[in-house]
Amino acid sequence: MSKTHAVVLVSGGMDSCVTAAIANLEYEMSFLHVNYGQRTVNRELKAFNALADYYRVKKRMVTDLSHLSAIGGSSLTDTHIEVRKADPRSLFDSKENEIPTSYVPFRNANILSIAVSWAEVIGAPKIFIGAVEEDSSGYPDCRKEFYDAFNTVIDLGTKPETKISISTPVINLKKSEIVKHGIELKAPFELTWSCYTREDQACGVCDSCALRLRAFQVSGIEDPIPYLQRPQYL
Amino acid sequence: MSKTHAVVLVSGGMDSCVTAAIANLEYEMSFLHVNYGQRTVNRELKAFNALADYYRVKKRMVTDLSHLSAIGGSSLTDTHIEVRKADPRSLFDSKENEIPTSYVPFRNANILSIAVSWAEVIGAPKIFIGAVEEDSSGYPDCRKEFYDAFNTVIDLGTKPETKISISTPVINLKKSEIVKHGIELKAPFELTWSCYTREDQACGVCDSCALRLRAFQVSGIEDPIPYLQRPQYL
Repeated sequence: MSKTHAVVLVSGGMDSCVTAAIANLEYEMSFLHVNYGQRTVNRELKAFNALADYYRVKKRMVTDLSHLSAIGGSSLTDTHIEVRKADPRSLFDSKENEIPTSYVPFRNANILSIAVSWAEVIGAPKIFIGAVEEDSSGYPDCRKEFYDAFNTVIDLGTKPETKISISTPVINLKKSEIVKHGIELKAPFELTWSCYTREDQACGVCDSCALRLRAFQVSGIEDPIPYLQRPQYL
Repeated sequence: MSKTHAVVLVSGGMDSCVTAAIANLEYEMSFLHVNYGQRTVNRELKAFNALADYYRVKKRMVTDLSHLSAIGGSSLTDTHIEVRKADPRSLFDSKENEIPTSYVPFRNANILSIAVSWAEVIGAPKIFIGAVEEDSSGYPDCRKEFYDAFNTVIDLGTKPETKISISTPVINLKKSEIVKHGIELKAPFELTWSCYTREDQACGVCDSCALRLRAFQVSGIEDPIPYLQRPQYL
């Protein structure tokens, strides 16, 4: 029996890797990657293709949202805005979270809209995205209620016969739980990339590296990717 | 006193022209135009710039959503799918409306997402779009409930201090009422373009031409743009 299709949003980081490992259990996956002018665009694309090869994904789409870098407003797309170094006091305490400079305005709605357009045409009833609400950088478009509202928009904005919903299987997990779950599913973490600033070795000190390193340290597992430095975040 | 900013989505057609004329009464307008691989891309862009010049709009953004044509699924972006000729029986009777082949999957969510990203960065609390629910082609993403749901997504997916809402001032008007309202506001219909298939003269027979010609005929006003043929749709 052939599996149902699903579009999986794959940035190339650890969360989308584990999300793909979960989707792979039940669905025939099509991978979508979006370049939005982020600093590490080439390294992310390499990770995306490596993950697609690993999971033998036939349908892949890579698209550019160059307007997001033209619009700016984020340290990920505008080199005039500094990518902050992780401050463990605020980064790991969700109560203290402010929206960081790496927030790309309304990015996930832009990306999800593409995924829905594609899913409607190829007939995929599910879209997987590796958003993480708790234990994350505090982006507003990574919260469960955002995805619930987006599902309503999909229902109203597509053909009556189209039934597509977004699945966020890791949204309520802590990052360390995502690592453990990924290990159980043999997710290829060595192929992933999370650093916001560097493409050769991960910097170890941006928010994304700090969250990832801490997750592996909490799990007692060695992160297999190369780092320039590996601060202890425990 | 300086006016509040608004992002206005301007396709270059009559509905977006009148929407801009309405927005212009109260707001400092920034114009956004999206190429999504539609057949009449150059003619629409010409209309967009002519309207922006007419209203002396300083901030203009033109962006490409080339993935929408790569994804396909619509007669507007895929030349293998025929643009249907208007069938007055079904076209003008909303009860008989099926989703036409010109529906571009989830197009308006893609376009609105860009508008929200831009509006958040430039600090514009309003986004205007000339969607028409009644008396239109029957696209699901032109209905008021779609925009209400999208406003919830905006509220949840942007920074807490960001307050942006979508305004659809012509959504409940008949096309003929839009023409009359445009005339009152001195909207420059001669600069607009609506035809789905041709760039030199409007074809007069695609759904978009038929809806437009009928609207002018009901209003008793001569449509100032050139047509290859002007069937009577009354």
